[in-house]
Amino acid sequence: MKTLILQEKLKKGLNISERICSKSITLPILNNVLISAEKNFLKLSATDLEIGVNWWSLGKTEKEGEITIPSKLLSGFVNFLPNKKISILAKGSDLYIECENYKTKIKGVSSEEFPIIPQIGKEESVSVKSIEFCKSLSQLADIAVLSTTRPEISGIYFNFQKGLIIAAATDSFRLGEKKISIKGSLEKARSLIIPQKTIKEIINIFGEKQGDLKIYFSPNQIMFECLMPETNHPEIQVVSRLIEGEYPNYQEIIPSKFSTQLIFNKEEFINKIKAASLFSGKVNEVNLKVDAEKNKIEILSQSPDLGDYQSLISAKTKGDNLKVSFNHRFLLDGLLNIKSSDVLLELSGDSGPGVLRPAGDNTYLYVVMPIKST
Amino acid sequence: MKTLILQEKLKKGLNISERICSKSITLPILNNVLISAEKNFLKLSATDLEIGVNWWSLGKTEKEGEITIPSKLLSGFVNFLPNKKISILAKGSDLYIECENYKTKIKGVSSEEFPIIPQIGKEESVSVKSIEFCKSLSQLADIAVLSTTRPEISGIYFNFQKGLIIAAATDSFRLGEKKISIKGSLEKARSLIIPQKTIKEIINIFGEKQGDLKIYFSPNQIMFECLMPETNHPEIQVVSRLIEGEYPNYQEIIPSKFSTQLIFNKEEFINKIKAASLFSGKVNEVNLKVDAEKNKIEILSQSPDLGDYQSLISAKTKGDNLKVSFNHRFLLDGLLNIKSSDVLLELSGDSGPGVLRPAGDNTYLYVVMPIKST
Repeated sequence: MKTLILQEKLKKGLNISERICSKSITLPILNNVLISAEKNFLKLSATDLEIGVNWWSLGKTEKEGEITIPSKLLSGFVNFLPNKKISILAKGSDLYIECENYKTKIKGVSSEEFPIIPQIGKEESVSVKSIEFCKSLSQLADIAVLSTTRPEISGIYFNFQKGLIIAAATDSFRLGEKKISIKGSLEKARSLIIPQKTIKEIINIFGEKQGDLKIYFSPNQIMFECLMPETNHPEIQVVSRLIEGEYPNYQEIIPSKFSTQLIFNKEEFINKIKAASLFSGKVNEVNLKVDAEKNKIEILSQSPDLGDYQSLISAKTKGDNLKVSFNHRFLLDGLLNIKSSDVLLELSGDSGPGVLRPAGDNTYLYVVMPIKST
Repeated sequence: MKTLILQEKLKKGLNISERICSKSITLPILNNVLISAEKNFLKLSATDLEIGVNWWSLGKTEKEGEITIPSKLLSGFVNFLPNKKISILAKGSDLYIECENYKTKIKGVSSEEFPIIPQIGKEESVSVKSIEFCKSLSQLADIAVLSTTRPEISGIYFNFQKGLIIAAATDSFRLGEKKISIKGSLEKARSLIIPQKTIKEIINIFGEKQGDLKIYFSPNQIMFECLMPETNHPEIQVVSRLIEGEYPNYQEIIPSKFSTQLIFNKEEFINKIKAASLFSGKVNEVNLKVDAEKNKIEILSQSPDLGDYQSLISAKTKGDNLKVSFNHRFLLDGLLNIKSSDVLLELSGDSGPGVLRPAGDNTYLYVVMPIKST
């Protein structure tokens, strides 16, 4: 294998593949990135056996071939090189890299030992706006929780409908749901669960990528792909396994009626909840006391060891006065997932779940269970 | 106690005192900050019994008095308040704080239990430019190392002479020395060792403070003080214990003759040493090969597991060709302590120590021991 590529391009590809490489001791080949020179392209591939990534860049192939190289070492080294042409040459199981007055020989492993990254058929697909899609995912990604007893909730649930994805995540204390519009539609609706790690990598890889992201399906896998604008050749493919099992019927816990509706400034509320959290003691409990006549919420917390806290926030209020307690961490996580400056909080007495939404936007909601008074 | 103070001011003081408070389980009072309202001032004091800090601000004292309050909690809370007037009221062992629509009661402890921060006589002092002094200290602070067998080298050595401080730090593998000019002079030269932690706090507290820093002495303590420009009242005092013992006679190891002198660009050299470090294996060894005729240094490293590395850097060279090996971490630490863009490196064969200096500046030097070839 012999090829030429610009440092800046190779660096981008290695930064992506390095994240996917696992730190496996039992299967050290997974620490390596597979480098292939094929026709006009340089291709990098990496996998941890759950997620696989393929990345292509235009390159000047002088001799086709492939080799695997420790990903962290190669990526670290290329980061230090100047943004000049890099010459890459494989001889036996060694990789020779030259760039300006830098020369290095890196010990690699034959590509034959590298696991195959599954190919997904392209019969059925939908298309989303990459940046928007990733923003939506970031409102859900941190809600899921690794669970060995309930592997379903370790992932993000996706329901592909006509022109729409409904995605959801929960850890059984709180729940997020997001509606995402799509182009194209599937023959029939499809439900699946994608591992949390995959979703985080999707956000990382495609979060600032202009243009469309295509999604392809197979019974046990999903693939996300973006194309090079200049050639329509794939640029990045991420293939992930799906989580088997039935996602909990979460819609049941989203309340449809509320006794009280509040609209308030998000930043101010976050600040006052954080201040309250200092006095909330070990149970993380902060109390909200709604005064509907005065359009105010009182925020309270107390700890026998530390002291008492109290502050007020103005809120457009509809409905009844009430008192309710939440875990401040769950409340804050939901608030931070909301991107608008005003928040709508809907409550039902002191034991019904609270629902947070961006004010005037029905595409996102966050349900949080209250701490029941004893 | 009753007083009024602006949030921004109190926040500054609490950020300083919070850092000094220890996380002591055996002596929980050390987690607290002592708040005193006295005449026109609000005073904060904190100590970990090694370092003590006093901080003053103009405030509107309505009733004098003092109380101690958990430092982290108070500082955390005040950080969330708006930049408005804060009313502070002590009743019994509770502190009541009000600011806009925030109200809190924090449980405190009587000031009687708070340890006394020693007072240092003001007979003898020298004066330094605060920002410059702290910049100088930052070139030494990280070189010292906590050592139970040799407590002397856990501190930074200071030798106060006429118009000059010579300060030094070592961990026995490398050594830094800095000359700092002072105003005023002591009756006779004075040598002392200041704990590394104190030096780091001095840099943190006074590093961006315009104006002069006064230094006062007692047999076992040292005090750093800056004044409020408007009143000449002390603004911040840091009192620290000194480390007892004799500092090693480090001057012996600074070589006075060299076989080879090199001047090169610092950033480029740092980059190439960092790249070399990737291939340096467990002993952290990188090799320099000086070609005096070509005015070049070759930078080499190799590891049987990973591969080989080689790069070149141009250097104005005087003297002999040579080969020498260093621990890349020690070399990089020294380079990062040098603030100029060009560096002078002086070498004596393959077993003499190397000396790094900012090119054209004799106030700083960094000695690093080579890895001897076996």
